[in-house]
Amino acid sequence: MAETPPHTDRKSQIPMKLKDVGEFGFIDRIAPYGITRPARVVKGIGDDCAVMEFDGPDYLLVTTDLLVERIHFQLDWGWPELMGAKSLAIQLSDIAACGGRPLDAFISLAVPDRVDVEWLDRFYRGITEYGRAFQVNVLGGDTTSSKSDLIINVAVTGQVPRDQVMFRHTAKPGDALILTGAIGDSAAGCHLLQYSISLPGEIREPLIMAHLAPRAHVKEGRLLASSGSCTAAIDISDGLSSDLGHICDESKLGAVVHADALPRSEPLLEAAARIGSDPLHWMLNGGEDYVLLAAVRPEGLDAVKALLEAEGCAIHVIGMLVEGNDIILKRADGTEAPLPRGGWDHFRQEP
Amino acid sequence: MAETPPHTDRKSQIPMKLKDVGEFGFIDRIAPYGITRPARVVKGIGDDCAVMEFDGPDYLLVTTDLLVERIHFQLDWGWPELMGAKSLAIQLSDIAACGGRPLDAFISLAVPDRVDVEWLDRFYRGITEYGRAFQVNVLGGDTTSSKSDLIINVAVTGQVPRDQVMFRHTAKPGDALILTGAIGDSAAGCHLLQYSISLPGEIREPLIMAHLAPRAHVKEGRLLASSGSCTAAIDISDGLSSDLGHICDESKLGAVVHADALPRSEPLLEAAARIGSDPLHWMLNGGEDYVLLAAVRPEGLDAVKALLEAEGCAIHVIGMLVEGNDIILKRADGTEAPLPRGGWDHFRQEP
Repeated sequence: MAETPPHTDRKSQIPMKLKDVGEFGFIDRIAPYGITRPARVVKGIGDDCAVMEFDGPDYLLVTTDLLVERIHFQLDWGWPELMGAKSLAIQLSDIAACGGRPLDAFISLAVPDRVDVEWLDRFYRGITEYGRAFQVNVLGGDTTSSKSDLIINVAVTGQVPRDQVMFRHTAKPGDALILTGAIGDSAAGCHLLQYSISLPGEIREPLIMAHLAPRAHVKEGRLLASSGSCTAAIDISDGLSSDLGHICDESKLGAVVHADALPRSEPLLEAAARIGSDPLHWMLNGGEDYVLLAAVRPEGLDAVKALLEAEGCAIHVIGMLVEGNDIILKRADGTEAPLPRGGWDHFRQEP
Repeated sequence: MAETPPHTDRKSQIPMKLKDVGEFGFIDRIAPYGITRPARVVKGIGDDCAVMEFDGPDYLLVTTDLLVERIHFQLDWGWPELMGAKSLAIQLSDIAACGGRPLDAFISLAVPDRVDVEWLDRFYRGITEYGRAFQVNVLGGDTTSSKSDLIINVAVTGQVPRDQVMFRHTAKPGDALILTGAIGDSAAGCHLLQYSISLPGEIREPLIMAHLAPRAHVKEGRLLASSGSCTAAIDISDGLSSDLGHICDESKLGAVVHADALPRSEPLLEAAARIGSDPLHWMLNGGEDYVLLAAVRPEGLDAVKALLEAEGCAIHVIGMLVEGNDIILKRADGTEAPLPRGGWDHFRQEP
């Protein structure tokens, strides 16, 4: 190692913080460094999963995510079982977005002294029961201590036939945009929890459960992938505006979204009305819904609809991909406005 | 989800803490939960890597580890490049212990505001340059914020021919115990850093670099695995007494270790003499050496020695596996004593 180690250019003497460049800005900075052996790497940083060739006909998928107390969750917001299940669900959702079948999960925990073993047992119970429902093993359990926050890292492997993998960068103009479920509920539930807002149980509970116990759309992902008509997909983790932005940016396209066509739940509309919020704000920018957003070739749309509906899965056409790079939101009254790719960036806005 | 979620038996009303059961006790508690789809799982929790069948002739290896500021490292102890390299090295060492070839690394970071982008750039530079030396790609870069400590999770995939994978539970009585390098230097270096002990550079620097910039013995692991004579292996991460204890426990064997045969460096002996420490303490309990400890069939030992030495790799015979379950340390003066399987357990002893 040289005496003065090399580092990237520093244009200013003021130290730049991660919040100044944002998570995605930082990923753009580091991505070029990473691939030093390109053979067998199909997709590295930048999609929901990394996609690699392994021996045999399928691709290997790997996704990993770090959840940090006070950033991504509060310990007192729910049962440990639900936290365990959710920490796995959001990774299975990444596998689903690539069209894959999840295989094995590897959990790392850093545990502060105030968290007792019963909590951890219940957390693991939640992960493993959730995994069982998807035939996913929990195989690794690195566990260490922490001086302050509880930290959870979940890595999940998956596999997908090579001709079925779904990326973000492969959508085409004219493709229909579809969602596999309602959006906004999770953000509304998070809002109710955060501000301890009391509402009737039939409104409050489904929203809170949407936030605390999301379902990974693995089945929907496999159906879309195997349909042969899906050109791109992503899961709604950061919010529709942001996640659609990823598909558009990486496919070098724009999009038109019909506000009226966005699937929304009754509890969401009720909660928004009662606390005077705009439900569209939660639907467009909320995130953590973990439904899939996909681009479908127009000539295959009817078949894809039939395929998902035959399997009991929802599918909602919300708009279309178009040439250009603008994302336009069309409202029922005929007005339209640009849909800013704001979404959720932990470094730019506090929860 | 039931109203009262199930949880494991709680024998006492006093909440049990992780430090009461220890990391390994906790892993024993959770391991039975994890495997809900046993097909294709060769080894789950409990070895250096999880080992899975994938398509094709090789096994897929996965290892993941969480490094937490103030538990595993201090931010002011070294260059960010070295921290990046070490965080990858310790994972490559797990792949090496299974005899594998590392493939791809997936990094998750939780970054407090006080850490600037230049630090992160340098950290990633360190990881990717270290990866390049082993033909390992850095493919994932989940990056989030943290309210307090810097958190680093590194997951690495690897592959190994099915007939070459090395486990901990497969050693046989009569097998020779070998080490692929000196032990104790890292612990001594850590001690010098922790207590800011000043010693002449030619003593201090190699010890500190052993702690901050360990080398993963990937080449040694591949040679041992391909020799056909290696029955078990582990990397020295927790300390010889503890890691040998893992091989003995899982292979249901005891061992005899010759204190005089343990490979040690001159700087270690010099540092111990100057500060009045017992070098054997660092060698037996220190950990973080990341050399390999392996069991080798006696009839194949000469060939394994020749194989490693021909490739410029060190090999030191330090003892033998025996029937029973005691680990005995034999000293040069003919005395012997049980070698307690103390080692390093983050929950039982502070760094």
